[in-house]
Amino acid sequence: MNKVITISRQYGSGGREIGQKLAQAYDIPFYDNELITRAAKESGFAEETFARAEDKATNSLLYSLAMGINVYGNQDFGFAGLSLDDRIFLAQSDVIRKVAEEGPCVIVGRCADYVLKERENIFNVFIQASVDFRMKRAIELYGISEKKAGEEILKNDKRRSNYYNYHVGEKWLTLTNYDLVVRSDLAGIDNCVKCIQAYLGE
Amino acid sequence: MNKVITISRQYGSGGREIGQKLAQAYDIPFYDNELITRAAKESGFAEETFARAEDKATNSLLYSLAMGINVYGNQDFGFAGLSLDDRIFLAQSDVIRKVAEEGPCVIVGRCADYVLKERENIFNVFIQASVDFRMKRAIELYGISEKKAGEEILKNDKRRSNYYNYHVGEKWLTLTNYDLVVRSDLAGIDNCVKCIQAYLGE
Repeated sequence: MNKVITISRQYGSGGREIGQKLAQAYDIPFYDNELITRAAKESGFAEETFARAEDKATNSLLYSLAMGINVYGNQDFGFAGLSLDDRIFLAQSDVIRKVAEEGPCVIVGRCADYVLKERENIFNVFIQASVDFRMKRAIELYGISEKKAGEEILKNDKRRSNYYNYHVGEKWLTLTNYDLVVRSDLAGIDNCVKCIQAYLGE
Repeated sequence: MNKVITISRQYGSGGREIGQKLAQAYDIPFYDNELITRAAKESGFAEETFARAEDKATNSLLYSLAMGINVYGNQDFGFAGLSLDDRIFLAQSDVIRKVAEEGPCVIVGRCADYVLKERENIFNVFIQASVDFRMKRAIELYGISEKKAGEEILKNDKRRSNYYNYHVGEKWLTLTNYDLVVRSDLAGIDNCVKCIQAYLGE
């Protein structure tokens, strides 16, 4: 396995668990939202980089920063034009690029497919499932009520979709963004893992 | 295998070949565009049905007809309001429902996923690939020039997308329409077949 596997997923679809099982099967590191966010906060990279960036951020600047392209030609740089969300996204993007450079791994969430899209050996998976399946899973896994599970699905799908559409500028549910799109409710988690392994041929 | 497998695909992606290999592996019938169209023409069903249908077709009528719901309560039915394309679509939908009733099979194209969507044990696959891969495949398989291959890809993708969007009313490239979306250029045709088999667990 020489690939960085990125996993995007609907809330409650089991994407995180599928990612963990793939990482175990290939004996490679696993990174989820929480790990990426914590690493970005702890890196100290944020302040250092933000202090040098442009006063008025444009989309192309944001893109350049996310891609790790050096844009610091101007002495007047500062980060006043970027929202906190954008700053966090950039710090997370940096962490994602760093762990991807270290070698094969599984990364769940945080638009990792987009952040790494210019690199080789990136494999992008999307996991989806019926609302019924996701309700049931959320109730069992997170110990929440049926009402709460329904609300979480709506809220999280919306949030993830907005997050992706905002940062990537393409629709989250457009299949051409991914190499493999798997529905977890029909096959079950383990067959999804086998399906991805069969695709990768190893 | 107790499923009807429908395959939607980008031009040159190898969807038809993947469908044939799946049908061979499971020893079930294979139906492509040409077979469905020929059967629809030969069935005589077209005239018989069209003669009884409503003068001014609405979307819900078209939907009912495609779904095989009996809508003939009115003596004044006639098919003047339907375009030739719609009539052909209805005749093809009827053939698709008939072959699906006969048992497990593979059906490529013709919005079979949509036509069969109310039935059980339908499994919907989408096959995509990079333009480079599809160019190369089209040149080799159909013996056409590079220029012609590029034109065919553009024309056919557009035609299939329009066909799907028109008849189904949803976007062709929206991943929630499918159970499994596989990119054939990274894995190759045979690994795509294995991936689908691993998903189905048989």
